[in-house]
Amino acid sequence: MKQVNILAGGPPEFYPDQLFKLKGEWIGVDRGNLRLLGADITPQLAVGDFDSMTATELNQLKKKVSRVLQVNPIKDETDTELALKQANTLLHADKIDLYGMTGGRLDHFLSNLLMFLKPDFKEVAPKVRLIDRQNIILFLLPGVHHLVNIGDYKYLSFVSLGNVTELTLPDEKYRLHKQTDLYPTAYVSNEFLNSTATVSFVSGMVAVIYSRD
Amino acid sequence: MKQVNILAGGPPEFYPDQLFKLKGEWIGVDRGNLRLLGADITPQLAVGDFDSMTATELNQLKKKVSRVLQVNPIKDETDTELALKQANTLLHADKIDLYGMTGGRLDHFLSNLLMFLKPDFKEVAPKVRLIDRQNIILFLLPGVHHLVNIGDYKYLSFVSLGNVTELTLPDEKYRLHKQTDLYPTAYVSNEFLNSTATVSFVSGMVAVIYSRD
Repeated sequence: MKQVNILAGGPPEFYPDQLFKLKGEWIGVDRGNLRLLGADITPQLAVGDFDSMTATELNQLKKKVSRVLQVNPIKDETDTELALKQANTLLHADKIDLYGMTGGRLDHFLSNLLMFLKPDFKEVAPKVRLIDRQNIILFLLPGVHHLVNIGDYKYLSFVSLGNVTELTLPDEKYRLHKQTDLYPTAYVSNEFLNSTATVSFVSGMVAVIYSRD
Repeated sequence: MKQVNILAGGPPEFYPDQLFKLKGEWIGVDRGNLRLLGADITPQLAVGDFDSMTATELNQLKKKVSRVLQVNPIKDETDTELALKQANTLLHADKIDLYGMTGGRLDHFLSNLLMFLKPDFKEVAPKVRLIDRQNIILFLLPGVHHLVNIGDYKYLSFVSLGNVTELTLPDEKYRLHKQTDLYPTAYVSNEFLNSTATVSFVSGMVAVIYSRD
């Protein structure tokens, strides 16, 4: 079971506790690389356009990290998309956790959330979690899923991210039966009633958000 | 031109500077009310389930605010949706700015972003801005729009929120011509080339995000 963590450049106040003690290999995205090096972690791979780094910072990064992929800012693919592809194909990750994606620019956050709708990223979506200090987001493909109650997170929310049919929440505090959404819809502040919660749907993608106040 | 500001309970570190010096009337949502009272602002209306407030806090609120709408947590409508409807119908707002919606629970943020896709909120969407310290989000309906370059925000991003057809960005740094998106898609880190930028599309809704590092 190979774990890969990707750290982007969002503000450190949003990291979960003990981030740098996590197991697994690391990929840094843009300024996330500097944060990793600052914590004495050498990423397997550094990705970014690095336009927010000084020449000195970039040179230091290139000395320490053996694989640096410098992307052109004029591109179809974002830094995070490239990092995710590399986690999958180069590092053969079984599980991928994304950090440093929240608390700053909302365009970055939305881009990182919506990328999983792209056909290229559907396959990798079920391996991924997007995590910050208050939230854990999972991405579900059609089928029946059993979510595990993580005691520390009171709220359980579901966001249909486009063309979701027959969304069913049979055993949560607030139930839903074969809901079909014509546009992205957020069902928030639901809660577990048991140690697991079931969610099923027939098409589309659903983001599940565990959150706490 | 009547301005109404709505303050939700997100963390104060995300407020833009000088928030409490803004002109206009206020609606507080949940703990946002306590922040308004703490800044010597009495909201026209307080909305919320108030389940995160103590009985003492709620009593103080009820003494000071003449209109308090206490909603049931088991409901189809979120607090913010109710606040927005009241801004429109009770206070007859011409412009509505939303604060305190970011930096905390991501389910809350996504719910507040996606509510504008609901048929009930399409009419009000063009009056609304969602603002925090780094971002300003606008919601556009189909047509041709001319966005004004606000010098302080380097980046201009476009997020098609569902069923957007013929999205065209003719005069930005990165251009797009009659793009039709089958699923929500983020076009991020674009930039103004001139004092205004044009965006047009034929159906659906587009969120425009002004952002800065």
